[in-house]
Amino acid sequence: MKKHDYHPEVFTDVFGSAASVLTISPGDHVMTSTVDAHGFDANMNRLMDSINALTGPFYIESAEPGDTLVVDIHSLTPNRNTGWTTSVVSHGVVDSAYVKNLPQKEYVEWDIDLEKETATPASGNSAVHSLQFPIRPMLGCIGVAPRDGQKISTWTSAEHGGNMDYFGVVKGTRMYFPVFVKGALLGLGDGHALQGHGELGGSGVETSLDVHFSVNVEKKSIHWPRGENDEYIFSIGNARPLMQSLQHAVTEMMRWLKDEYGLDENSASILISQVTEIDIGNVFDPAYTAVCKLPKSFLPR
Amino acid sequence: MKKHDYHPEVFTDVFGSAASVLTISPGDHVMTSTVDAHGFDANMNRLMDSINALTGPFYIESAEPGDTLVVDIHSLTPNRNTGWTTSVVSHGVVDSAYVKNLPQKEYVEWDIDLEKETATPASGNSAVHSLQFPIRPMLGCIGVAPRDGQKISTWTSAEHGGNMDYFGVVKGTRMYFPVFVKGALLGLGDGHALQGHGELGGSGVETSLDVHFSVNVEKKSIHWPRGENDEYIFSIGNARPLMQSLQHAVTEMMRWLKDEYGLDENSASILISQVTEIDIGNVFDPAYTAVCKLPKSFLPR
Amino acid sequence: MKKHDYHPEVFTDVFGSAASVLTISPGDHVMTSTVDAHGFDANMNRLMDSINALTGPFYIESAEPGDTLVVDIHSLTPNRNTGWTTSVVSHGVVDSAYVKNLPQKEYVEWDIDLEKETATPASGNSAVHSLQFPIRPMLGCIGVAPRDGQKISTWTSAEHGGNMDYFGVVKGTRMYFPVFVKGALLGLGDGHALQGHGELGGSGVETSLDVHFSVNVEKKSIHWPRGENDEYIFSIGNARPLMQSLQHAVTEMMRWLKDEYGLDENSASILISQVTEIDIGNVFDPAYTAVCKLPKSFLPR
Amino acid sequence: MKKHDYHPEVFTDVFGSAASVLTISPGDHVMTSTVDAHGFDANMNRLMDSINALTGPFYIESAEPGDTLVVDIHSLTPNRNTGWTTSVVSHGVVDSAYVKNLPQKEYVEWDIDLEKETATPASGNSAVHSLQFPIRPMLGCIGVAPRDGQKISTWTSAEHGGNMDYFGVVKGTRMYFPVFVKGALLGLGDGHALQGHGELGGSGVETSLDVHFSVNVEKKSIHWPRGENDEYIFSIGNARPLMQSLQHAVTEMMRWLKDEYGLDENSASILISQVTEIDIGNVFDPAYTAVCKLPKSFLPR
Repeated sequence: MKKHDYHPEVFTDVFGSAASVLTISPGDHVMTSTVDAHGFDANMNRLMDSINALTGPFYIESAEPGDTLVVDIHSLTPNRNTGWTTSVVSHGVVDSAYVKNLPQKEYVEWDIDLEKETATPASGNSAVHSLQFPIRPMLGCIGVAPRDGQKISTWTSAEHGGNMDYFGVVKGTRMYFPVFVKGALLGLGDGHALQGHGELGGSGVETSLDVHFSVNVEKKSIHWPRGENDEYIFSIGNARPLMQSLQHAVTEMMRWLKDEYGLDENSASILISQVTEIDIGNVFDPAYTAVCKLPKSFLPR
Repeated sequence: MKKHDYHPEVFTDVFGSAASVLTISPGDHVMTSTVDAHGFDANMNRLMDSINALTGPFYIESAEPGDTLVVDIHSLTPNRNTGWTTSVVSHGVVDSAYVKNLPQKEYVEWDIDLEKETATPASGNSAVHSLQFPIRPMLGCIGVAPRDGQKISTWTSAEHGGNMDYFGVVKGTRMYFPVFVKGALLGLGDGHALQGHGELGGSGVETSLDVHFSVNVEKKSIHWPRGENDEYIFSIGNARPLMQSLQHAVTEMMRWLKDEYGLDENSASILISQVTEIDIGNVFDPAYTAVCKLPKSFLPR
Repeated sequence: MKKHDYHPEVFTDVFGSAASVLTISPGDHVMTSTVDAHGFDANMNRLMDSINALTGPFYIESAEPGDTLVVDIHSLTPNRNTGWTTSVVSHGVVDSAYVKNLPQKEYVEWDIDLEKETATPASGNSAVHSLQFPIRPMLGCIGVAPRDGQKISTWTSAEHGGNMDYFGVVKGTRMYFPVFVKGALLGLGDGHALQGHGELGGSGVETSLDVHFSVNVEKKSIHWPRGENDEYIFSIGNARPLMQSLQHAVTEMMRWLKDEYGLDENSASILISQVTEIDIGNVFDPAYTAVCKLPKSFLPR
Repeated sequence: MKKHDYHPEVFTDVFGSAASVLTISPGDHVMTSTVDAHGFDANMNRLMDSINALTGPFYIESAEPGDTLVVDIHSLTPNRNTGWTTSVVSHGVVDSAYVKNLPQKEYVEWDIDLEKETATPASGNSAVHSLQFPIRPMLGCIGVAPRDGQKISTWTSAEHGGNMDYFGVVKGTRMYFPVFVKGALLGLGDGHALQGHGELGGSGVETSLDVHFSVNVEKKSIHWPRGENDEYIFSIGNARPLMQSLQHAVTEMMRWLKDEYGLDENSASILISQVTEIDIGNVFDPAYTAVCKLPKSFLPR
């Protein structure tokens, strides 16, 4: 087990970029940082002129196509005291007849108070500018090189993860990704100090983060990203329409309960039907993200 | 203010049935009961051979088209110690390529323990049959007569509410419905002892309930069902596809924040974007149900 | 066989209205007329203040739930020399980001020349006002009483037909509808002098029509509306999302080929895969309409 | 103007592959061939073990990002007398409740008769095996390098074209593609001797083709693939859900009518609403394809 301090100077805006920036081994820890969705770092220097620039990709020794990459997120901390959002909900999340009522989109600056762990809108003169929103730092983008030799932009997501914008990717979360290429090629970025369900405004409170993660490799195959935390196991589907992303997530949960918990389809169905919770990650990006969560307390030991 | 004890003997399977069973006034309380989704009551007598038979409709004095009907749910209690579910997730909630892996659907009997407030699968020999699921009794069907002189089946939902199968319609919830006909014609039924998000198996733990509710009328107009509890206000959209139900819910929340809380579109957007939570009621019925929830702590006083 | 001349004076705006206006027998012919989508007749008298007012319902002797109603459309002729459309494509048929570019909707008057069989925009000063569009008169609304005791508005459609706005419902077409109530209760209205695929503007060239049809009853069951003309047999699905309407249509065609043409699923699949044509009726109404058409030349005799 | 004879020996299975196989100039003609969707050529040699292997990419001199690539398809001819299809409609194009009725998928061999211009199922013993289907050779895959530095698999499609599986891409068609990278990088493949609307079975009659095309470059920008033939201009949208692909196509047609034919939005809307035809290319691939077609006879000169 090694600890790597990696200070990113080059970034990529596709998952599947060939050149890795660092080779790490299963069990290794990495202390690094991410720029915000517009490429600005802790000092407000723009390090890349692109959307959702990724830190990475990291090449993980021994990860082979068909394996599962495990990523433990040990901490996510904003490394500056500002963030930004756009000001208006996306035209895609309201009735089409209502779109004309939406004002022009502007940018809103936010102050981030790391001691109080709050964020507050600081520009404009909106009625909500006195409010303190509790922060819950998350990674909008996390994933590996995609299937079939593709390079997929960091504005979307698929089986490899990507720009899922799921508010559940926080400190203390373990993520699982299907490995499609040798070395897996893990990338991460697009940090949000906080974000509502669905990313209905098209952005969280966008900021740069310090990140501490470690990796492992499991010799088993999964179809879609999975995760777990103290309370839940969860499976993620990324697709359009929204119902299809949910179908992927439910199907992956069904496989998980059968393959790893030994439940038959009827038993798995009872859990999925009666105690599952559904999170909607985003309905803004080209692929929407739905999450099927099962409380660990109902799982067989 | 009056208290009505209403023991239903006739039921309806459409919202919009002309003949009301009881006339009540704003402020009145009603103690009544509902049969389960197959028409069985507390004593397992089948009172109606239909799906989702409703108790009601109740005619509410002074409710006029364009008004809002307020329904406070004071208690929901299973009135027998059994329930049932189907055994397999719906073929519509998994990948179409996975449908062939699903076993034949069967019925599962459940024991309901009203003291412990738990439910347990009691038939079949599934691996989850030893588990005790905490109950959280809810109404699958609640709504008023629909718009445009229609009669709409209790297997679906729309602007009038209906078979929304939303797990959030529990004791302590205040619901709001747009009134489309004189007297509003409130109906309720399809009780579940518990149900997971999305009603992924096509049923909750179906049982008969004792219900205590009261009504009020507000002289204002809303477009979609709304609700509130101690922590949240929420708006509900019922439609297919799932994204459209969410668009209805978000649009209704936007109107709510503007019309009743005095927020401009930018301020409302910041709340909706950064602290909204999304619940998925059902993705099984002909119309799917999505819910947009805002914590009351962020609302202007 | 009887010939009925029926001059409508009362109309309905729901499918499923209880009171029939005329009782007819299998084999009977009916000469009648329809008002336009706003209720105006041949003399521009408004006979009903409602959207898509229906002529009917007609009670068909011997039609029982589970039967199939056959409707032969012998002629459809505009009975006045004017029509109208709205001026702008629907906000639902363009990218949500483009909605703000659409101008305000206005009404456009059209001249209909019955001799030349053309229609021409006559109001406004659009660049297309000199153009002569060939007319192809069709019925936007045609259907029977819906299932489950419902009354369904004439702005939407389902298994019973309804407001399908399919440009293929023209003179020379035979339509088939599943019968859900005794007498079937056929209604028709919402004539268009012409209409593009998808009803992308939310209207055809709306006008009043003289209609000549005859009916029959077949003692067999179908699930969705079907039709045929000289060249094709076709099945219709009405639902949202659009893909679901197409799934209904394809499934119904599969059943048709198996049950009435004796094809196994593989043979039916080859026809459906290699020579099917798809028409999109409307993507404007609450339910969208997709049509699966098979050339008769490929059918077994 | 040059004529190139290009005999492909290497292929690619992504749009966006860096290495071009031939550099051509605007005005140049190319005589080449494509392998079938499984990589087999005229002599049934498998030249690539991949799905939808492309011939190309061709680098077009002077094509710059922001330009439009014009491709004229002069001829498409099967270069062998066999093809294949799968035997069963896709599980995604029927009701989810009907999926279990579909038999196991098999491969069906077809005979292609180049003189009669027909194709006939030759394996299995289906009831349709005596039928002669008229061929109409088309390219399932045609497109350029995608936006944002991506490499996109040949099993899907987007703004760059790709695996659109549109039956309208035949001899005599002129196609237009937005150019995203220097040289455009045109690729083509996945020939079908014939295919029904929607590619409901997941394949056309797959075969290898001889192809004759020429290219040009226009210094204007488009958003989505376009095309024209003797009768129509058409715009193509590729996305899920199906409605979104149609929205892209309609929006692109609106832009086309405004920018190149000088119509205002109201005039364009009247054409789009009253004389547009809609084709459904595929509802099988990861992105569905919808086409908005306008008869040239209604266009301003």
